[in-house]
Amino acid sequence: MELGPPGGAGPAEPGPRLRGLRGDDRAASAAWLSEASAGRRAPSVAAVLPAGGSGERMGVPTPKQFCPVLERPLISYTLQALERVCWIKDIVVAVTGENMEVMKGIVQRYQHKRISLVEAGVTRHRSIFNGLKALAEDQPNSKLCRPEVVIIHDAVRPFVEEDVLLKVAIAAKEHGCSDYDLEFGTECLQLALKYCHTKAKLVEGSPDLWKVTYKRDLYAAESIIKERISQQICILMDAKEDEEHVGRCLEEMLKKELNHVKVTSGALCHAGRDLQQIILEQCYNFVCVNVMTSDFEETRKLLNALEESNLSILYPVVVISVHFLDYKLVPFGQKMEHLMQIKEFAKEVKKRNILLCGLLIYYPQDEQKLQESLRQGATIIATLIKERSFGLVGQLMVA
Amino acid sequence: MELGPPGGAGPAEPGPRLRGLRGDDRAASAAWLSEASAGRRAPSVAAVLPAGGSGERMGVPTPKQFCPVLERPLISYTLQALERVCWIKDIVVAVTGENMEVMKGIVQRYQHKRISLVEAGVTRHRSIFNGLKALAEDQPNSKLCRPEVVIIHDAVRPFVEEDVLLKVAIAAKEHGCSDYDLEFGTECLQLALKYCHTKAKLVEGSPDLWKVTYKRDLYAAESIIKERISQQICILMDAKEDEEHVGRCLEEMLKKELNHVKVTSGALCHAGRDLQQIILEQCYNFVCVNVMTSDFEETRKLLNALEESNLSILYPVVVISVHFLDYKLVPFGQKMEHLMQIKEFAKEVKKRNILLCGLLIYYPQDEQKLQESLRQGATIIATLIKERSFGLVGQLMVA
Repeated sequence: MELGPPGGAGPAEPGPRLRGLRGDDRAASAAWLSEASAGRRAPSVAAVLPAGGSGERMGVPTPKQFCPVLERPLISYTLQALERVCWIKDIVVAVTGENMEVMKGIVQRYQHKRISLVEAGVTRHRSIFNGLKALAEDQPNSKLCRPEVVIIHDAVRPFVEEDVLLKVAIAAKEHGCSDYDLEFGTECLQLALKYCHTKAKLVEGSPDLWKVTYKRDLYAAESIIKERISQQICILMDAKEDEEHVGRCLEEMLKKELNHVKVTSGALCHAGRDLQQIILEQCYNFVCVNVMTSDFEETRKLLNALEESNLSILYPVVVISVHFLDYKLVPFGQKMEHLMQIKEFAKEVKKRNILLCGLLIYYPQDEQKLQESLRQGATIIATLIKERSFGLVGQLMVA
Repeated sequence: MELGPPGGAGPAEPGPRLRGLRGDDRAASAAWLSEASAGRRAPSVAAVLPAGGSGERMGVPTPKQFCPVLERPLISYTLQALERVCWIKDIVVAVTGENMEVMKGIVQRYQHKRISLVEAGVTRHRSIFNGLKALAEDQPNSKLCRPEVVIIHDAVRPFVEEDVLLKVAIAAKEHGCSDYDLEFGTECLQLALKYCHTKAKLVEGSPDLWKVTYKRDLYAAESIIKERISQQICILMDAKEDEEHVGRCLEEMLKKELNHVKVTSGALCHAGRDLQQIILEQCYNFVCVNVMTSDFEETRKLLNALEESNLSILYPVVVISVHFLDYKLVPFGQKMEHLMQIKEFAKEVKKRNILLCGLLIYYPQDEQKLQESLRQGATIIATLIKERSFGLVGQLMVA
């Protein structure tokens, strides 16, 4: 999945990509979106998330929607997916009374917006009903707008994309029903038919709509999320000649190592402006090249900028501080001792969900040997980004 | 899933565990097994694996049954699961002509036993038919025994357990049908009913029977397999006083860090006998403690024993060489330089699917600081085992 431009308020997040809409669908969505963005009378849409289940099939006491993936509860990813759809005005989540405080904590910690909480019912249908009631009420003090269309979406389907939501919302508006079940209608469609004599329209979804049910699904979700946030790497270096040379070589090696990954590079001397831009593009992986500067100066600039940016609220950010060793000038052991400071920095920034490692690359005079060192360095960088592991922070790798 | 005693010929592998059989099932299985193990006339059972699919839904050109998990094709795991069921006499795999050589290579490389290959048909049913034909033929030069019961099993369901296979085989024998579809009967049961007027018996399976269909399923399979082979860690140390003390402390820390994992320890001085035993128990994770001995001596003994044992044929084996630093005696930089030799060892054994890393733990005089170092060391060890990463071999971590 490619990362697109961000949407919506809140911390930077991977944006959606409208895919695969053709013909009438495409025309309808274009019309819908242009009305919405122009602030004209576009149909108002809300979402209701039943999240009161106990997740018995998971085999663990924690309900699956609260199971952590990369240390963040699964439901937070689903909220994020819906939040970035700018035309969904309200997101109502139904949780059990005992999980209400936990849910409030999640909304606050991950800075979710446009979220309202209601109490879940004894069954999924009752939870949905409670959510709909909250949206239907025209209370003066209610923050919720009464919508024309409501999308019902499971809290444990985190990979929903905007194009499917759009198709469903458009179909709902056209066919006059007030809600659709995105699960291909096992429950709600039958009820709609039986009790309302309404033949609901079935919209084809994508494989991304799969549901987290078993423990293996949490594993799959984690792998998919990790893969998504590993799609862009930013190499930062000072704009001096030596640094640019090794920086560019390292960039080439990384591109070969991870040929589907977008590698960008920039200078830290314009730190403020460039970093802001990079952070807006939702890059979660930084390689900070320190050649000539006194050690850690560039890395520390980067870490400060990251801490101010809130980038690491939703996902752990990997920072690799790269240093070079010309052992003819500085003995290896001495360099290693000096670089061990990285443990202290790492311990500090770990609290802010930033995973810092060091990488020492041999810088021999021989160009071919340098290329080999850089190649090994690229392999190590790729591995650290892919694993995104809390257990190896502060370690100093050697290529 | 706990690892049980090994079964069957071939390299050491995690054994099955018969779970959950009750009442009549339990009695029947006990009878079956005792007949089988006593060599009496137990019903003969074979398996047929249709493996001719193209895996279109995976989104990659490689058919899913050949997609690698931990660098080993998925189908090899399914073969392993069936092989360890001693009462399945023959396993017939149906593959397309173009994949025949690849399949032979897989059987050879991973030392699978009791496998026969037939050509797949145009459809899954035709592949099954070809497999059954091969088993039915009573050719003098055929290596296959004509079975009474044949189990049809998808090549992409790697987590099948013996208890389910047993239930299905027993049901087949009792009800007189000659094959069952373990997919809950979408295809074969309907055919059996329609054409043979046979009402097949439906046997309840377990969630483990899930099928690898999408890329996310490969991720899930990899995580499950990695988790299973991380369930046992063996700490090896020389039986001298200092080593025993830190070794035992490290063992305690590891048990706290990974409280569901079995941690055993032993001495390398009886290397031959103890290691053989440990290897038979299918332990894939070794922590080799070197305190007093000249560096790497114990680690090298272990690596030699591992290379002779074939343990790493089916799964990558993690070896962590632990060293201690009393910086009052030896300067840190000097120790690090000395330990860098590990890169050469690691490069060598990586070719044999053994992943070697080093870990240097501070050994201060202060007991409390030592405990803290050991705790950090345990975290690093746990991470390296969990990640089982090829990209970090030869690295020297510091606690």
